Amino acid sequence: MTQTISRDTFVYAMSQEHKPSLRVSTGESIKIETSDCFNDQIKSEDTPFNRVDWERINPATGPIYIENAQPGDILKVNIEHIELGDLGVMATGPNLGVMGHRINEFQVKMVEIKDNQAVFNDQVSLPVHPMIGVIGVAPEKGAVSCGTPGAHGGNMDTKLVTTGASLYFPVFHEGGLFALGDLHAAMGDGEVGVTGIEIPAEVTVSFDIIKGQKIQYPFLENDEGIASLVSKETLDEAADFSVEHMIDILMPQTDLSLAEFTMLMSAAGEVQVSQIVDPLKTARFFVPRRVLNACGIHLFK
Amino acid sequence: MTQTISRDTFVYAMSQEHKPSLRVSTGESIKIETSDCFNDQIKSEDTPFNRVDWERINPATGPIYIENAQPGDILKVNIEHIELGDLGVMATGPNLGVMGHRINEFQVKMVEIKDNQAVFNDQVSLPVHPMIGVIGVAPEKGAVSCGTPGAHGGNMDTKLVTTGASLYFPVFHEGGLFALGDLHAAMGDGEVGVTGIEIPAEVTVSFDIIKGQKIQYPFLENDEGIASLVSKETLDEAADFSVEHMIDILMPQTDLSLAEFTMLMSAAGEVQVSQIVDPLKTARFFVPRRVLNACGIHLFK
Repeated sequence: MTQTISRDTFVYAMSQEHKPSLRVSTGESIKIETSDCFNDQIKSEDTPFNRVDWERINPATGPIYIENAQPGDILKVNIEHIELGDLGVMATGPNLGVMGHRINEFQVKMVEIKDNQAVFNDQVSLPVHPMIGVIGVAPEKGAVSCGTPGAHGGNMDTKLVTTGASLYFPVFHEGGLFALGDLHAAMGDGEVGVTGIEIPAEVTVSFDIIKGQKIQYPFLENDEGIASLVSKETLDEAADFSVEHMIDILMPQTDLSLAEFTMLMSAAGEVQVSQIVDPLKTARFFVPRRVLNACGIHLFK
Repeated sequence: MTQTISRDTFVYAMSQEHKPSLRVSTGESIKIETSDCFNDQIKSEDTPFNRVDWERINPATGPIYIENAQPGDILKVNIEHIELGDLGVMATGPNLGVMGHRINEFQVKMVEIKDNQAVFNDQVSLPVHPMIGVIGVAPEKGAVSCGTPGAHGGNMDTKLVTTGASLYFPVFHEGGLFALGDLHAAMGDGEVGVTGIEIPAEVTVSFDIIKGQKIQYPFLENDEGIASLVSKETLDEAADFSVEHMIDILMPQTDLSLAEFTMLMSAAGEVQVSQIVDPLKTARFFVPRRVLNACGIHLFK
C-alpha cells in the first residue's frame, strides 16, 4: 500500500534540524498531500492583506528521510502523478512581483478549475498545467525559508517540474530530508505577478540515489531534454551559471574542446527563465535530448 | 519586379546621418542581401583572431527609406522569406560569450548547411532555423553600432525574428532608415558562445506604417502570439521592463485593473531570453494569441 504523508506535516523552512516525518526506500512510490502557498488561508476574494498570516506561507510537506541517501550523493526524484484541488488562488500587491511598484492594494483572485481549464474570468480560461513550486532537500547550512530557492532546490517555481519529470538534487545531509509544496494549476515563466494559480494537491513521487557523482545545483530531466536550475541574486548570474554548470557536467562525456562544446551549446541550448520574483531568481539552461543522443551523452551514468 | 538591395550597400552602425540607399513604398516586397556578421571574412577554420578585421563586424544592409514613415509612427516589418547560404560559421574565444573567462584561444568552426540541417560535426546535425540577428531603424540620437541592441532594434539576436513574423519599431526619423543583417542558420536562446551559426542570406520583407500609436521598444507578432523585445544593461532590467511595457500596451484594451491584468500575465505570459552576450542584453515577454483573442486584444488596432 502506498504510504501517504499528510498536508498537516510540513515545514516553513528546509533545514537539517527538522526531524523526518516519514522514512522511505528507493523505488517506493509515496503520496504527498500539500496545502497551497498561503497554507489554505485564503478562501475568498474579500480577504485583505492583513487577514493573511504572513508567517504561515509556503509550507512544504515533509521532511522525508530517504534510506541510504548520504552526503555527496545525488537524490533523484521522479514525479509520477499530480492531482490538483478544484479551487486555486492568485494574489498580487504593493512591492510584490514585477508591477508591485505601481499596484496600491493587495488583491486576491479565486480561480476555479473545471474540465481541465483554470477559469480566470468569464472571458479567459487557461489550460491546466500542474507544476510544483517548492521542492528540495535540507540545505548544506542553516535553515532556508521555503520561499527562497537555492542549491538545495526550494522555491524554484519552475514550470518544467511536472508529471514525468525527474529532478536531481545534491544530498547535503543523511536521508536528504526531502520536502515539497506550493503547487500551481498554471504559471507562466517568470511568475511576474508573484503567484501562479496556487492550489492544494496530492503528488506521487519515488526516489533513486546516484552514488559517486557531484552537482552544485539541481538538474531536471524530461522527455524533451535536460535543464540545470540555478538561483542567484540576479537573473544575469543565474543564467550565466546555469550554462557553465551544464557545460561542466556534460562536456567530459564528449571529445570536444571547451570552445567547441560551447559553440554547440550556443547553437542548440536554450537559456530560459523560471522566476524573477522570489528572494533569489531562478534561470535554467536547457539542452534538447536529440543533441544529447547525437553526442552519446547521459545526464548521470 | 522586386527591388533588390545588394549586400555591398551596408552600414556598421544605425544612424540618422546615413543616406538611404533605397526608397520603398508600404506594401512593396523587397529583397535584401546580407553578408554574415564577420562580413564574410572567415572562409576556413584556420582563420586566427588577428586575421579578422574587427572594425568590419555586423554589417546591416541598408539603410532603406520607407515613404511616409514619420517620427512618432510605428514601422511594421513583415518577414516574408529567408533564403540562407550553404556555409555557416561559428566562433568563440577569450572574453567572448558566457564561457569566455575560461577559453584561452579564439576558435572558428565552419558549419555546412545540407538538406535543411546544419552539420556541426560527424555526430551532430541541427535542424535549420533561419533568423535575423540585426534588424531595426535609425535610433533617436547619435549612431549605435550594429553590434548593440536598443529601443531602435539592432542586434537583438532573437530567435523569433523569422519567416512569418512581423516586427514593430518606433520611428525616430523621416523614412525610418531601416536596415538588417546578421542572419543565423540556427541559434539557441541566449546565444551563449557569442555567435549563432552565422551565414549570408537573402531576406524578403515588406513594410506598413501605423499612425498615432506609440511604443518605447520593438514588438514582435507571429501566429503563436506577441512579444515585447527589451534590451538593457542587465537581464533583470530587460526582463522587468519587457513585462511592464507589454502590460502598458495591452491593458488599456481590457476592463481589468492593473492588479488583475498582472495576475493574468503571471498565469499566462512568459518571460523569455533572447541573448545574454551583446553589449546590452535582450529579454522578451511573450503573450499567447489565445489569451489575446479571449480578451479581445489586438496588438495595434
